[in-house]
Amino acid sequence: MRRVAFIGAGRMGQTIAYSALMDGIADEALIFDIVANVPQRFSDELIHALSTARVDTRVIGTNAIEDIKEADLVVISAGKPRLPDQSRTAVFADNAKVMMALAKELPMRNPHATYIVVTNPVDYMASIFMKSSGKYTISTGAQVENMRMRSFIAQRLGVPVTSVNGFAGGEHGENLSIFWDTVTVNGIPFDEASGGALKRDEVASYVKGIAAQVIAALGGTSWGPSRAIGDIISSFAKNKNKVLSIAAPMKYKDEVIHVSRPTVVGNPIGPTLEAALSSADRKDIDAAAGRMYKEYKELLKTLQ
Amino acid sequence: MRRVAFIGAGRMGQTIAYSALMDGIADEALIFDIVANVPQRFSDELIHALSTARVDTRVIGTNAIEDIKEADLVVISAGKPRLPDQSRTAVFADNAKVMMALAKELPMRNPHATYIVVTNPVDYMASIFMKSSGKYTISTGAQVENMRMRSFIAQRLGVPVTSVNGFAGGEHGENLSIFWDTVTVNGIPFDEASGGALKRDEVASYVKGIAAQVIAALGGTSWGPSRAIGDIISSFAKNKNKVLSIAAPMKYKDEVIHVSRPTVVGNPIGPTLEAALSSADRKDIDAAAGRMYKEYKELLKTLQ
Amino acid sequence: MRRVAFIGAGRMGQTIAYSALMDGIADEALIFDIVANVPQRFSDELIHALSTARVDTRVIGTNAIEDIKEADLVVISAGKPRLPDQSRTAVFADNAKVMMALAKELPMRNPHATYIVVTNPVDYMASIFMKSSGKYTISTGAQVENMRMRSFIAQRLGVPVTSVNGFAGGEHGENLSIFWDTVTVNGIPFDEASGGALKRDEVASYVKGIAAQVIAALGGTSWGPSRAIGDIISSFAKNKNKVLSIAAPMKYKDEVIHVSRPTVVGNPIGPTLEAALSSADRKDIDAAAGRMYKEYKELLKTLQ
Amino acid sequence: MRRVAFIGAGRMGQTIAYSALMDGIADEALIFDIVANVPQRFSDELIHALSTARVDTRVIGTNAIEDIKEADLVVISAGKPRLPDQSRTAVFADNAKVMMALAKELPMRNPHATYIVVTNPVDYMASIFMKSSGKYTISTGAQVENMRMRSFIAQRLGVPVTSVNGFAGGEHGENLSIFWDTVTVNGIPFDEASGGALKRDEVASYVKGIAAQVIAALGGTSWGPSRAIGDIISSFAKNKNKVLSIAAPMKYKDEVIHVSRPTVVGNPIGPTLEAALSSADRKDIDAAAGRMYKEYKELLKTLQ
Repeated sequence: MRRVAFIGAGRMGQTIAYSALMDGIADEALIFDIVANVPQRFSDELIHALSTARVDTRVIGTNAIEDIKEADLVVISAGKPRLPDQSRTAVFADNAKVMMALAKELPMRNPHATYIVVTNPVDYMASIFMKSSGKYTISTGAQVENMRMRSFIAQRLGVPVTSVNGFAGGEHGENLSIFWDTVTVNGIPFDEASGGALKRDEVASYVKGIAAQVIAALGGTSWGPSRAIGDIISSFAKNKNKVLSIAAPMKYKDEVIHVSRPTVVGNPIGPTLEAALSSADRKDIDAAAGRMYKEYKELLKTLQ
Repeated sequence: MRRVAFIGAGRMGQTIAYSALMDGIADEALIFDIVANVPQRFSDELIHALSTARVDTRVIGTNAIEDIKEADLVVISAGKPRLPDQSRTAVFADNAKVMMALAKELPMRNPHATYIVVTNPVDYMASIFMKSSGKYTISTGAQVENMRMRSFIAQRLGVPVTSVNGFAGGEHGENLSIFWDTVTVNGIPFDEASGGALKRDEVASYVKGIAAQVIAALGGTSWGPSRAIGDIISSFAKNKNKVLSIAAPMKYKDEVIHVSRPTVVGNPIGPTLEAALSSADRKDIDAAAGRMYKEYKELLKTLQ
Repeated sequence: MRRVAFIGAGRMGQTIAYSALMDGIADEALIFDIVANVPQRFSDELIHALSTARVDTRVIGTNAIEDIKEADLVVISAGKPRLPDQSRTAVFADNAKVMMALAKELPMRNPHATYIVVTNPVDYMASIFMKSSGKYTISTGAQVENMRMRSFIAQRLGVPVTSVNGFAGGEHGENLSIFWDTVTVNGIPFDEASGGALKRDEVASYVKGIAAQVIAALGGTSWGPSRAIGDIISSFAKNKNKVLSIAAPMKYKDEVIHVSRPTVVGNPIGPTLEAALSSADRKDIDAAAGRMYKEYKELLKTLQ
Repeated sequence: MRRVAFIGAGRMGQTIAYSALMDGIADEALIFDIVANVPQRFSDELIHALSTARVDTRVIGTNAIEDIKEADLVVISAGKPRLPDQSRTAVFADNAKVMMALAKELPMRNPHATYIVVTNPVDYMASIFMKSSGKYTISTGAQVENMRMRSFIAQRLGVPVTSVNGFAGGEHGENLSIFWDTVTVNGIPFDEASGGALKRDEVASYVKGIAAQVIAALGGTSWGPSRAIGDIISSFAKNKNKVLSIAAPMKYKDEVIHVSRPTVVGNPIGPTLEAALSSADRKDIDAAAGRMYKEYKELLKTLQ
């Protein structure tokens, strides 16, 4: 991996770039934002931090989209953040316009790049960007929910987080699916390992509700998602082939949509592990795909 | 991951333990070898090295197999090394006896452990240990060939090794399969990326032949396999879910055999990605399984 | 290092805790802030991030200062941030009161802790906390300016940042000293290495001015200082004995003041390398100490 | 740091190169040894291991000393290893000839390199190489004894090794000095911290005797010294400025000798912390310098 571009240097964009670059993923990092001075001064901050970490990455901040060129990877967090009283879908229209505008600018100068979308509502934004640009695009999907699930189980059962495995996916938010047949503690299936001390419902409730609580207290989530997204970027950039719960493109009827599934993240991205999931877990994915397709089609209409 | 046991502190065993423990995988490491003083003094060496790396792991070296208990992971490298003029199968009988002896001692004191076999011929030794012990056992399989393939392609095409992806597997040695439909450079299929500058045969020839050349020059391979095996251990112990080309148990007719396939390495181990491979690549696995089953059955007869 | 407490979960406190904890410095982290829900929800964010990084650290967020106990290290960032139009000294009075309040609460419950102060104006706040608490306290001092200097030289001369060495220190802000006789590029003294392509004045100007520019553009500095402070914490917690430009206590006339000097950061902290600096560089430290003592005494009067 | 050369690919040379290169210290590594095929095949092993670790370093193995050129750092481990029944000085004559031969070949092609000598008797060999080559040369000195001391204290007192600090130095072997006034556990002076549970003599006895025991059991030391030497290389190559107990050149009467002292290891190397040690600890260094100078002068006579 040689050149990585970050489109958007807001709270999330900054935290993602910081987390990912500390892993030593790039020879050169390009930081773009429309706000004057922000990408330049954030680049200064990054250079100071990289200097401490002894990571040799050149960093260039710019307000000119023309400077974003020949990247191997483009990470898009531009757009409006989700406000405390907003649903993920409420920002759809505004951010879709941002995606479409970027889809006109980025592909011609970054023809060989893989595109990772972080902007919310993330799965739909990835679909919009891919549809508009014609470029291979992934959504960072449910990977952060995945890690929230593991951290909560570890904490509640009093085991190291390295003892917990398992995946979440499907659709974001209230309809998120935990793929329970994949969840284990020290290799033992969840229900047996928890022995009733922790119920599935409690886990699901935490994973679905914690983002809103963090937003209410801190004004937004950043550290959890950013470290999770940094991990996706790092696994791609270094061809680590980790299985992460991202949303790679899925052909569904007449559209390409993005539904989170355990997926091998290297370069190229894939395959998904969907075929290896239990039928119960696969049903959850199918149901999510159906719902998301329907909602996506309706949202697309609002753009015209 | 709390406690990891290393059975065998010869050249390979030492290099594996050193490489894996530097990753911070264990609170406690148990080192066993039958040679007096060797595991104790090697433990001293490890403690000195861990001290430098600021890794807080207790290390205990012992000649008493009874001291190997309550481990979460047992890594077995005990046995005779492959000599320069030996085939992998030539050491079968001697090392099978070692496996069977260990299978009597280890399971009762380490009932919840996952077992990783490194002793050559590695896939057969894993099958023998699993058959004798009744415990879930993997072979480290073709993961080192996998990385040899990537390193050779990177070197010859003048790209960073992080640009190369792809898997090798099936059977060891002369019959190793490179799963060519998975091999890419910067995400581009191998043949297109190499543009004829590097032929499939050259890659296969290097991957199949380099171990013998290293053995001839250095008396044995150690650094490459050990770092690859350390990566397997680390992915298991930290639930990283990396896809690595190990040999997890495969039911085949009346036996459980070990054939290398791209496999998700977390705790628990699996699934394999076999279903996602191309039909050409899957055929190679089937053929390898057939050959290995047959040879294994014949070798088993020699034990009686 | 077993237990690390972070007092203050504002922008800087959060970024420091995130950066330091990712290095695996603690078995348990305590996060305190007076704002309801903030430390608790930030702890959730940390747990999610640590889960991704496979770092096994328990994290507890609290609004009750009584919960901060038996820590080995206490990092204090509580207080008001420096606003765009403020000088570092303008916030002295308000933050001094915070230090004095904390000095009544923390030492009795954390008697064996080392205290690191980050709150601005940092050197004075460290002196105030140490004076009020009687506990050994350091200021994170000029370490971030140190790394800013190296990063700027690297960038302008087109060399990797790992090629640049050297220290800055003395007093913060306009009166900062670069210890020019320590500055090298690939081991060659700065003036010779730069060959006139980069002047001392340009370096000094960047290092002294960049924080204000970042504050103007981003509303505050965070990434650069936090990674630098995380490095200080990590070097202390793991006894790495790195030489960093922190401000350890210095007896000066009738007070203990904090003046930045290259200092060995292990546990315990020290010695400084002041005696090994050139006489020109030492004179800068003496001058800074004189100025800072005088200003500190005057500021102390304003507290009565 | 761009190019690092390793002269000697024996047991120690291999372990050092492996340990150092895994830290990502070089864009290019050159491996030299006189034995046909050994550096080439060891380079293959390194490439396989680096591939697993996702470290992008080119590695070139060669039997032609002319290929070792334009290095920034040259690490010399060539020479005869210390046999079980040999004293460190017994190999002086043979290895001095190796140093003198290398001093004729390396400086002209590597004029800007820093030289690190590992070959035993290490301090004398560094002095011989520096005297013969006119190039700045350090000995890796007592850094491994330093870490052995810390690891033993940690183990015996049942504390994490990250809790222990302190330095050893002076002369190797029977006459090694532990600088007791620097030794602490959780920041508390050793005698107070150990409370009599562990005596200074026991620590000294372990540190002085363990190498011989390891050699007796394993045929040589490798893991402990190599990780310690890798840390020295890494601190130099990345300008980390860690304080390590190496032996930098010391003018003594009419010679430059190498005596281990706590020393800042960046590029350039230095200063030493000798001035900050207690007078008791400094006396040990003076005594060591006197003894070593005398022995060195006598050994030099045997070369004529």
